[in-house]
Amino acid sequence: MTLSDDAARTYELDRRHVFHSWSAQAHLTPTVLTAAEGCYVWDGEGNRLLDFSSMMVNTNIGHQHPKVVAAIQAQAATMCTVAPHFANDARSEAARLISERTPGELDTIFFTNGGADAVEHAVRMARLHTGRYKVLTRYRSYHGGTETAVNLTGDPRRWPNDHGNAGVVHFFGPFLYRSEFHAHDEAQETERALSHLARTIEMEGPATIAAIVLESVPGTAGIMVPTPEYLRGVRELCDRYGIVFIADEVMSGFGRTGKWFAIQHFDVVPDLLTFAKGVNSGYVPLGGVAISPAIAASFAQRPYPGGLTYSGHPLAAAAAVATITAMHEEGIVDNAFDIGARVLGPGLRDLAARHPSIGEVRGIGVFWAIELVRDRVTREPLAPYGGTSPAMTELVAACRAGGVLPFVNFNRLHVVPPCVISEAEAKEGLAILDQALNVADAHTVDAR
Amino acid sequence: MTLSDDAARTYELDRRHVFHSWSAQAHLTPTVLTAAEGCYVWDGEGNRLLDFSSMMVNTNIGHQHPKVVAAIQAQAATMCTVAPHFANDARSEAARLISERTPGELDTIFFTNGGADAVEHAVRMARLHTGRYKVLTRYRSYHGGTETAVNLTGDPRRWPNDHGNAGVVHFFGPFLYRSEFHAHDEAQETERALSHLARTIEMEGPATIAAIVLESVPGTAGIMVPTPEYLRGVRELCDRYGIVFIADEVMSGFGRTGKWFAIQHFDVVPDLLTFAKGVNSGYVPLGGVAISPAIAASFAQRPYPGGLTYSGHPLAAAAAVATITAMHEEGIVDNAFDIGARVLGPGLRDLAARHPSIGEVRGIGVFWAIELVRDRVTREPLAPYGGTSPAMTELVAACRAGGVLPFVNFNRLHVVPPCVISEAEAKEGLAILDQALNVADAHTVDAR
Ligand SMILES: Cc1ncc(COP(=O)(O)O)c(C=O)c1O
Ligand SMILES: Cc1ncc(COP(=O)(O)O)c(C=O)c1O
Repeated sequence: MTLSDDAARTYELDRRHVFHSWSAQAHLTPTVLTAAEGCYVWDGEGNRLLDFSSMMVNTNIGHQHPKVVAAIQAQAATMCTVAPHFANDARSEAARLISERTPGELDTIFFTNGGADAVEHAVRMARLHTGRYKVLTRYRSYHGGTETAVNLTGDPRRWPNDHGNAGVVHFFGPFLYRSEFHAHDEAQETERALSHLARTIEMEGPATIAAIVLESVPGTAGIMVPTPEYLRGVRELCDRYGIVFIADEVMSGFGRTGKWFAIQHFDVVPDLLTFAKGVNSGYVPLGGVAISPAIAASFAQRPYPGGLTYSGHPLAAAAAVATITAMHEEGIVDNAFDIGARVLGPGLRDLAARHPSIGEVRGIGVFWAIELVRDRVTREPLAPYGGTSPAMTELVAACRAGGVLPFVNFNRLHVVPPCVISEAEAKEGLAILDQALNVADAHTVDAR
Repeated sequence: MTLSDDAARTYELDRRHVFHSWSAQAHLTPTVLTAAEGCYVWDGEGNRLLDFSSMMVNTNIGHQHPKVVAAIQAQAATMCTVAPHFANDARSEAARLISERTPGELDTIFFTNGGADAVEHAVRMARLHTGRYKVLTRYRSYHGGTETAVNLTGDPRRWPNDHGNAGVVHFFGPFLYRSEFHAHDEAQETERALSHLARTIEMEGPATIAAIVLESVPGTAGIMVPTPEYLRGVRELCDRYGIVFIADEVMSGFGRTGKWFAIQHFDVVPDLLTFAKGVNSGYVPLGGVAISPAIAASFAQRPYPGGLTYSGHPLAAAAAVATITAMHEEGIVDNAFDIGARVLGPGLRDLAARHPSIGEVRGIGVFWAIELVRDRVTREPLAPYGGTSPAMTELVAACRAGGVLPFVNFNRLHVVPPCVISEAEAKEGLAILDQALNVADAHTVDAR
C-alpha cells in the first residue's frame, strides 16, 4: 500500500522540519498516524492497528473518549488558559478529584506539564524539606528527559547526560528473573534487595540523603512488580532515616495496574507521588506532584522556589476532570484489573508455555512485559541491554504486519493496551502476538 | 462585592488542594478568574479587568481567539494525542509554519511542553554538539523552573536551587540605567558589556564553554532592549570560540516585540532558539527549540539523548498552526509594533514626565517596563532587588481597583498586553496607570 496524499505531505514535512526524541535523525521513517478511536489507530496507508502500546503508555482511557473530547471542547470555548497565580474552576476541580484518589493524605497538588517536570519538582521539594541533597534511585528505571530527571533514570539514556554532578546514586531493586542477589524466590529477592538498599544508605550516609525515588512498578525498564514487603521495607527505611519517599506513578498511575495508583496494591503511602500520562490520558499535556501535609507545610511560610507558566492549565485540568469522572463512572480501573487477571495474564502465560523465545511474562492489570530470550536456560536476552537486534526488529515488524502496535524496550515486548480494552480485543491482540512470536522463536537456541 | 457561589467553591478548593508556584502557601489569596475575551478577563466578583499582563506574557493573540478555539475543538474531535515517534499532520504543519518564521536556517524543530524544557534541551544539544559543559548566562534573566533552567536563571529564584554544580557562570549584560560598567550612554554600555563578556570567556577558558544563553530582550528581569551591536558582538564571540549561541525567545518571541522574534530587530542569527508562550498563546502547553543545520547534523548519526511523552502534541500543534495563521492574516505582529511606537511608547514617556516615581520607561512593541524609584537622582528602587514593598503592593492594588491587571517584578511594573490590543484599549490602560501611579509618587522623596 502507499501513503495517501495528505499522509505523504505529513511525512515529507516531518522529515524536513521535525526533530525526534531519543533518535538519530538520519535513520527515521516515522509511521504517519491519521486517526484513532478506542484501542485502535489508523496509519497513513489506511491500516488499522490495535494499540497495545497506549502510545507511550498514556491513553489509559483509550483514544478519543467522547466525554473527554467534549470536555476539552467546552473548556476551549470558555477559557483556554489562565496564569498559575489565579484560581480557576477546572484546576480546583481536577485537584479535588486527584486528591480524592491518591493514597493517604497526599491532598495538595502541584501541577506540571508532564512527567519529567513532576519528578524535577518532587526532588526539589524533598531537597528543601530535608535540607539534604543526595537522591537514591534504582537501576532499571525511567524518570524523564530533563537534566535532573534523566540523571535519576537508571537506563542507558542517562549515560550521555551524566556528568557525575546530579547528586544521584543508583542501587539495585528486586528483579528475580535477573537477580542481582543470587536469590531463588521472591521472598529471598525481597529480603536481599532490602538489605542491599539499607547497606547502600548506610554507606552513603543516611543524613546526606534527601529522597528515594522509585516507580511503584518500574514501567519502561521491564514491569517488575515488587512484593508488598519490598515497598513496605523501603517505607520503613525512609521513616527510620527521615528520607522522603517519592513514588513515581507517571506510568503506573491512573488505572494502569487495576487500581488508581499502583502503590495502593501494597498498602504503602509515599511522601510525594508524581503523576502524568493517565491523569488525562495525555489528551492535553499534564503532570503533577501529590504532596503530603508535612512537606506542604514546609512551604507554608517560605516560598516554594519553583514554577512554570502552565501550572494547572485549565484545558489540561478540564481533560483530567472528564477523564477521572469517566473512568469512575464506567468502571475502567476495575476493567483493567479484570482484563489482566482473566485474559492477559492467562493468555500471556499460555504464549510463554508454547514459545521458547519467552523467558518470562510478568505484570498486573494492563501492564505486562514479555521478556524475550535466545536461550531459556542461560536467559541470554534477545537483544543486548541498551540495544536492539535483528530478532527484535523482525518481531516488531511481524506484530505491525499482523495489526498490533507493540511497545518495545531492548529485549522486551510490553503489552500495555488502554485500560478500556475489551476481552475480545485483548484476545485478538494475543492471537496476533502468537503468530508474531514464531519469528522470535526462530532466533532461539531451540530453533537450531 | 462578593464572590459568586461557583467562584467561592473554586477558591475554597484551590486553598484546600492546589499548591502554587513560587509562593509561601499560607499567605495566598488567589483571585478567581471565570472568563476571558480579547484583552479582558473577569474575576469571581464579576469585575472586568484589562489584561496588561497577558497572563504570564503568553496570550499574545488575546484571550479566546475564535479561530484558535475552533482549531483546538476540531483537532480534539480528530486526534487528541499521538506519541512522538509517529508523524502527525498537525505537528508537521506547526513545524513548517514555525521554521518559516525563525531567523536564518533554524528549520528543524524539537517540540517540548513549555519554556523550561525547551531551554533544558537546547543546553543539552549545545553540550553534546561542542563536547563542552559550561554555560554562560547573564544576571537579570529568567530561563525556567526545572533544575538546569533555574540554575541558568539570573534572579533570586535561583538561589535556593543553586548547589554550585550546574555548570553555569553568570556575567553582567548591558543595562544602562543601572550600569555595571559606569557607562554614560548606550554605545559605551554596549562596548563595555561586550568587553566584560570577552574577558569572562577568556578567564573561564573558551574551550570549556558550550553555550551562551541570552534572552534576546530580557523579559521578567526588566525588558532591557539591547543595541544591535551588543547581540552582534555576542554572535562574533561565539563564532570566534566555537560557542553555541542560544537565544531564549520564550517571552520575546511570536510578536511580543513587533517582529516574529525579537532577535530579528538586530539582524543576528543564533544557533538555537527556544520558544513557548506566544507560539500558541499558551492555549495548550507547548514549547520548543529551533535548531541550526550544523547542530541538527550532530544528531544525524548518533541519537539525541532526550525526549518527552508529549513532544509535538497534536492539540498543542493545532493551536500553534491556528495562532500563527491568524497572527499572519490579521497583521497582529505589525499591530504590536505599531501600538508600541504610536501609543505605548509615547504614552509611557508622558507618564514618566509627570510621575516622579518613574525612573525610566523602556521597551518595544507590547513589551514595556516602568522602573519605579523612590528617588530619581539616586535611582533607589521602590522595592529592593528580589523583594517587594508597601509602595509596590499599594500600586498593584490601585491598578487592580482601577481595572488593570499589571505584571510586576520587584520595583517594576511591566506593560505587556496582548499583541492584539487596540489603540483605545491601550489608552484606557494608560489612563488607569496614570491614576494608580499617584500612589507610587506618594512614596518618593519628592512627596516629602
Ligand atoms: C515512570 C516515569 N516517570 C517519568 C516519565 C517522564 O514523563 P514525560 O515523558 O511526560 O516527561 C515517564 C515517561 O515515560 C515515566 O514512565
Ligand atoms: C525567557 C523565558 N525563558 C523560559 C521561561 C520558562 O517557561 P515556562 O514557564 O513555560 O517553563 C520563561 C517563562 O517566563 C521565560 O520568560
